[in-house]
Amino acid sequence: MSNFFEAHKDTLFQAVKTSKSRDYWSAYPEIASGKIYGETAKDDQLAEFEGILGKPFALGQPTNGKWTGAETSPYGKELGVTYEDVDPAELVKASQEAGKSWAKASVEERVGVALEMLDRINKKSFLIANAVMHTSGQAFMMAFQAGGPHAQDRGLEAVAYAYDAMTQTPTEVTWTKPQGKHDPIVLDKKFRVVPRGVALVIGCATFPTWNTYPGMFASFVTGNPVIIKPHPMAILPMAISIQIGREVLKEAGFDPNVLLLAADTTDAPKTKELVTADAVKIIDFTGSNAFGEWVRENAGDALVYTEEAGVNAITIESTDNLRGMASNIAFSLSLYSGQMCTTPQNIFVPRDGIETNDGKKSFEEVADAIKISLDKLLGDPARAAAILGAVQNPATLERIDAAGKLGKVIRSSEPVEGMNGARSATPTLVAVDSKNEEAYMQERFGPISFIIACDDIDDAIARAAGSAKSHGAITAALYSTDEAVIDKAVDAYAWAGAPLSVNLTGNIYVNQSAAYSDFHVTGANPAGNASLTDGAYVANRFRIATVRRQAAMA
Amino acid sequence: MSNFFEAHKDTLFQAVKTSKSRDYWSAYPEIASGKIYGETAKDDQLAEFEGILGKPFALGQPTNGKWTGAETSPYGKELGVTYEDVDPAELVKASQEAGKSWAKASVEERVGVALEMLDRINKKSFLIANAVMHTSGQAFMMAFQAGGPHAQDRGLEAVAYAYDAMTQTPTEVTWTKPQGKHDPIVLDKKFRVVPRGVALVIGCATFPTWNTYPGMFASFVTGNPVIIKPHPMAILPMAISIQIGREVLKEAGFDPNVLLLAADTTDAPKTKELVTADAVKIIDFTGSNAFGEWVRENAGDALVYTEEAGVNAITIESTDNLRGMASNIAFSLSLYSGQMCTTPQNIFVPRDGIETNDGKKSFEEVADAIKISLDKLLGDPARAAAILGAVQNPATLERIDAAGKLGKVIRSSEPVEGMNGARSATPTLVAVDSKNEEAYMQERFGPISFIIACDDIDDAIARAAGSAKSHGAITAALYSTDEAVIDKAVDAYAWAGAPLSVNLTGNIYVNQSAAYSDFHVTGANPAGNASLTDGAYVANRFRIATVRRQAAMA
Repeated sequence: MSNFFEAHKDTLFQAVKTSKSRDYWSAYPEIASGKIYGETAKDDQLAEFEGILGKPFALGQPTNGKWTGAETSPYGKELGVTYEDVDPAELVKASQEAGKSWAKASVEERVGVALEMLDRINKKSFLIANAVMHTSGQAFMMAFQAGGPHAQDRGLEAVAYAYDAMTQTPTEVTWTKPQGKHDPIVLDKKFRVVPRGVALVIGCATFPTWNTYPGMFASFVTGNPVIIKPHPMAILPMAISIQIGREVLKEAGFDPNVLLLAADTTDAPKTKELVTADAVKIIDFTGSNAFGEWVRENAGDALVYTEEAGVNAITIESTDNLRGMASNIAFSLSLYSGQMCTTPQNIFVPRDGIETNDGKKSFEEVADAIKISLDKLLGDPARAAAILGAVQNPATLERIDAAGKLGKVIRSSEPVEGMNGARSATPTLVAVDSKNEEAYMQERFGPISFIIACDDIDDAIARAAGSAKSHGAITAALYSTDEAVIDKAVDAYAWAGAPLSVNLTGNIYVNQSAAYSDFHVTGANPAGNASLTDGAYVANRFRIATVRRQAAMA
Repeated sequence: MSNFFEAHKDTLFQAVKTSKSRDYWSAYPEIASGKIYGETAKDDQLAEFEGILGKPFALGQPTNGKWTGAETSPYGKELGVTYEDVDPAELVKASQEAGKSWAKASVEERVGVALEMLDRINKKSFLIANAVMHTSGQAFMMAFQAGGPHAQDRGLEAVAYAYDAMTQTPTEVTWTKPQGKHDPIVLDKKFRVVPRGVALVIGCATFPTWNTYPGMFASFVTGNPVIIKPHPMAILPMAISIQIGREVLKEAGFDPNVLLLAADTTDAPKTKELVTADAVKIIDFTGSNAFGEWVRENAGDALVYTEEAGVNAITIESTDNLRGMASNIAFSLSLYSGQMCTTPQNIFVPRDGIETNDGKKSFEEVADAIKISLDKLLGDPARAAAILGAVQNPATLERIDAAGKLGKVIRSSEPVEGMNGARSATPTLVAVDSKNEEAYMQERFGPISFIIACDDIDDAIARAAGSAKSHGAITAALYSTDEAVIDKAVDAYAWAGAPLSVNLTGNIYVNQSAAYSDFHVTGANPAGNASLTDGAYVANRFRIATVRRQAAMA
């Protein structure tokens, strides 16, 4: 067992170190290259993926004998994969039982299992990429990166934070209190990390691994058995991950039920019964504000960590690179058809226009610059498909239609040519006045953005930061050449608890959030109550049991 | 301002270091000696205390023009001190306003203010000792130690943990992501600690400073303005502490309303209105399980850290030092008349007796040994008064009477001779059978203990640890010469989340909890949801706001 820890400890220590330096680093290469992953890995794992389809996917976990699951690909394919069905109460019981020996394992044993699991998951990145692609609708390259190495890095980051937190306290100490002329009082003390209980991780359909690994690994290495409840439309990526985890657990001599899958369907959901189970003591949730609120209110004494949703904003005051700005924004709006929790929705611009390197531009000209950049970016259908991917949920298409009626349509959404059988939609951009809060002051999930005419830059910043504070935001961007304006926005967003990206014009986007460096979600506004990953995300998942023993007196 | 940080940073760094080594250390001497505190300090500060009595104690904080407060000393004295009255909503508003500039202060500025405040509080330890004595009822020496230096150490410990947590993330970094043959992507990132909002600290009557400083300092240094709501019967110790804090804040150029007192009376309480105020984002609570549950359920989205109550147990299997064991237990039951949250209530002993260095002893003989030790310890009224102090709440006397009817009285409680005007009571010890759970399976606060006849040691451990798990426990003790029994109890208490002290026979007691070494409350059973102090206690009181800026490209 401890071989796993030994084998991977340098990776762990580098992750701990980078989480404190917050410079760039990655343990898992994001380049889908045969040189890195093996020349036949891509084809082999595609074949493996296809071999999984249309069959039961057995994990060997407790079951009521039935099979469940009804995933369909946003690219049009029936997946036909089914999973062991089980009553939530039985699942919780099996989890509790498996947790007993897991609780007694050493920190190094548990962390070693997690590191080996991540390593094996990494080697299956092409398999998982196919599973992520055909559940979330992400284009293949994004599914590989965001569903593979980037998600693995977020998992490792959680392991690193948890390891660091658990090892702040020594396992034992001799405590010696001087007593003046008398002999000192001496106590031998031992400190043991003890878990909370059964942990539940509720995943989402758009990032089935990236948003699930952090909570799963954080609870897992701190000694809690984990039940993973993926979104009913995106089970397979986690089923594969759990299968790998259960194998490593078995090899290490643990009950594989430390990791359990709770598969369900939209028609017969299991989430509420799991959330309200007494034995569930930790819940990680990714999803809507409405259901997030229900989870927070019905979790009893369980700790709850949420990533919900918000309205992300861009504020434009001025720029010295109009074309760079417009094309950067266009890419941010297009990537995965605006289905990222980090996609900007609202673009606040003074109605009198902005100063640029190309002279003063009116509000309409700014809107047009973004439209032109979108058209250029998405003009070639093959490139458009590779950037946009497919639309995960049919309801998103309805929202796009509805958005067109909320203001002046600058650019309308269209399906992508050649993506036969897939749900596809390019971004729509709608101009509205800042007074029309009904239009833009709520999340309209998908490739839907508003360009909003404001009184002036102060009004724009106040609305952008204000909406983050009141409705939540996971990202924010600002374009300005004026340091005083930047300072003002920095203060406003610190107050609103949203991370701010300033003057991005190059090959880096407001949507991107890098492990070990960017705190994803601040936990300081309604977009979520926790950050992936920081000290608070891990520190309360375990407690410390102390044993004090009077040392033999002289 | 930064001079405060410079002046005290060595103390801070030593506190951080000790919280990780968990060896003995104290920043504030516990010996009430003129050599340390100044030869006239004791008399001067007694005079200062008497000068405070019978008058309004003005902090210069917002007020509705009225005065409130109705403290009386358990030693029989009317204190006659009143405090500025103010409507909770106004208090919250003033706190929010003061919080604005406090949020923008640097970590070092805020920590510097806290360290200077602790240093000045330490210099007033005799004054605070008198205030603690005449509100809690603690004997003078305990009031000095537990209300003075020990409380200050717990405050410093919270500052140290918070400082360590806030400085895990750098204030800025240049993030450089290689791009193969291309230029790297470079972002300048800044990270700022941002507070949650108004913090509320609800204190208790028995340890008005020791239980209030940790939450107060943890919220304070992480940038949150703090409203302190002391128990209506124990306001003065915190009023003095807040007065000192407000002076330091003013000297450092901050709004003194960053620290506000919410004084009230039992007849006109303010707690519920403060708990439910929208702007209150962090609540620290010390008190009963019933009110703790109300706070947890009504706090909305505020973070809640509680120390509630439980039934602490001693389990006796065998001992190689019967007299040492009995006298150690007798002292633990007597200290502050059993009014410590760490006082043992239930003593589980096999009904067939135990093996000792003095041969086999029956259940009755073990009970008798403890009774004899109690009688010896408390035989001299002056010494009894110095150990027992006074009884804080008249309701405790009623509970003592009621306890006598629950089983066979081994030792009855008596008032202490010569403590005229004071409420005093020596410990009562009642023998019951383990089946009489109605008697012992609830907290009976005060100098009330049960010696409980169990089937055997397995039954005893199961009941002791089981009661910790179901009803909460802050401490636990075991006496055994059998390593197998000790191992079993260690596992049982790790599961139950109670710290275990093994074979204490010397001058160290299960009631005692040392800053930087003992985690007070585990947060893992119903005796409280948080520990004083660990990483989880501080990490979520602040969030991090990030600003990413594209670095000038080459």
